[in-house]
Amino acid sequence: MHSIAMNISTNVTRNKVNAQITAKRSLLCVGLDSDPAKIPDIFGRMDRPVLAFNRSVIRATANHAVAYKINTAFYEARGIEGISDMQNTLESLPSECLSIADAKRADIGNTSRMYAKAFFEHWAFDAITAAPYMGTDSLEPFFDYDNKLIFVLCLTSNPGSADFEEQQLSSGGTLYDAVLEKVQEWNRNNNAGIVVGATKSALLGEIRKKAPGLFFLIPGVGAQGGSLRDSSLSGLDDNKESALINVSRGVIYPQGDFESPEAFEHAVRIQAAALHEEMHTAF
Amino acid sequence: MHSIAMNISTNVTRNKVNAQITAKRSLLCVGLDSDPAKIPDIFGRMDRPVLAFNRSVIRATANHAVAYKINTAFYEARGIEGISDMQNTLESLPSECLSIADAKRADIGNTSRMYAKAFFEHWAFDAITAAPYMGTDSLEPFFDYDNKLIFVLCLTSNPGSADFEEQQLSSGGTLYDAVLEKVQEWNRNNNAGIVVGATKSALLGEIRKKAPGLFFLIPGVGAQGGSLRDSSLSGLDDNKESALINVSRGVIYPQGDFESPEAFEHAVRIQAAALHEEMHTAF
Repeated sequence: MHSIAMNISTNVTRNKVNAQITAKRSLLCVGLDSDPAKIPDIFGRMDRPVLAFNRSVIRATANHAVAYKINTAFYEARGIEGISDMQNTLESLPSECLSIADAKRADIGNTSRMYAKAFFEHWAFDAITAAPYMGTDSLEPFFDYDNKLIFVLCLTSNPGSADFEEQQLSSGGTLYDAVLEKVQEWNRNNNAGIVVGATKSALLGEIRKKAPGLFFLIPGVGAQGGSLRDSSLSGLDDNKESALINVSRGVIYPQGDFESPEAFEHAVRIQAAALHEEMHTAF
Repeated sequence: MHSIAMNISTNVTRNKVNAQITAKRSLLCVGLDSDPAKIPDIFGRMDRPVLAFNRSVIRATANHAVAYKINTAFYEARGIEGISDMQNTLESLPSECLSIADAKRADIGNTSRMYAKAFFEHWAFDAITAAPYMGTDSLEPFFDYDNKLIFVLCLTSNPGSADFEEQQLSSGGTLYDAVLEKVQEWNRNNNAGIVVGATKSALLGEIRKKAPGLFFLIPGVGAQGGSLRDSSLSGLDDNKESALINVSRGVIYPQGDFESPEAFEHAVRIQAAALHEEMHTAF
């Protein structure tokens, strides 16, 4: 007898992060939106302040986080120096955790192929965020990488989501519903996901029901005001997998003056542990 | 007697490129989508092939072009080496021409501020392309720069434009119509523009009628199949200003084997001159 072929292909990256989610009972993605103007003075006096700061955050959070999200804007803003920090930060991430380039790219096909090459081959990120406006052929080059994860913007956490994302279409549903449907079509390699904001936790549950097979990246907790517990419960799939909750400012910038990197790390660790603890309730 | 205050502020960048359009009777924007795999062998043997290639293209087109568009994907794909080429290419552009970062960025406000800082301050581009999906607060940080130009994706030239951009909204019109309306609201600093594909030249004329005051960036001529003459006529505003037609592959990759940079430059110059000549008919 032959075994029945699986419809859905194996994605080693997706399996890797799901194994971490299960093992740690955590959905925590730490957002490295590292701004030189905001990092503690103790790092400002070091050789490469942002890199030293990031490594400190990584050490403090490695037991609690299952993913790290590098917001490319914060590195691009400092040109080549920033890009070097991005590269060395990426190399400093725990290999068992997912690395996400929060890049929100997409363009015509031949250009998106270059973006995919940049983030998946040159930098070797595990995952990327992408923008849906230009449609199928602008995203296909990312989906061609069957061992990566691609999170397409769906319903975002910012006020401007009302301008276009939440508009009703004549064909029924909202624009973000149409995006959700397309992303499910694009999921032939089991590598598609969406970005859906935690500030809309009621909608988050509805979206999970409509898209049981997609990976969710959920920003907007903390500085942006979303509820962590609700987002965890609503975001996870039926296997208690395939969702990440990103916290950036709420974990990397603890209050206080720190006299040593160790003191800073201690404060970050406490914040990460508290977030982790709250996530346990969802498992 | 007091003079009547102008409603629309002066934008030195917009004035600069419009002066070039008028002086050269050209709308030509040369797209530097420079791919190491496609540039002639004579450059491949040089120290920094892409930079040498770009400088050659710039020399060959400077009399015909009014703008240069650097497609960031092609540079990011090569990491720090590519970003260095981008920086030196930007420094090699004629100062009277507009420099556009074709970056298609946008994110929540505090992140978009970083992207704006990256492209407008660190690299000092004159203009950027941006993606509208996330709405007003994701684009405001770009529009705060009142002496830059921001081209928001409206109706693009690729097949995927049918997926979302051309969808009808319940409130009337298409998604791209809604974007067009918003961009006009965002134009308080006279620095807003749109990206509208040349492959839709009938629609291009309609869009110009609806948005007489916006700057248009029109890609899709050449390799993507749009008509140059129709796009020129439809794209320019009532003053025969405020439109750029981008050609990338159709100008930077002439057919043939080239034995010297001079031979390559000659071929590029002929292509640019032919495009320029065709644009004259629109003035």
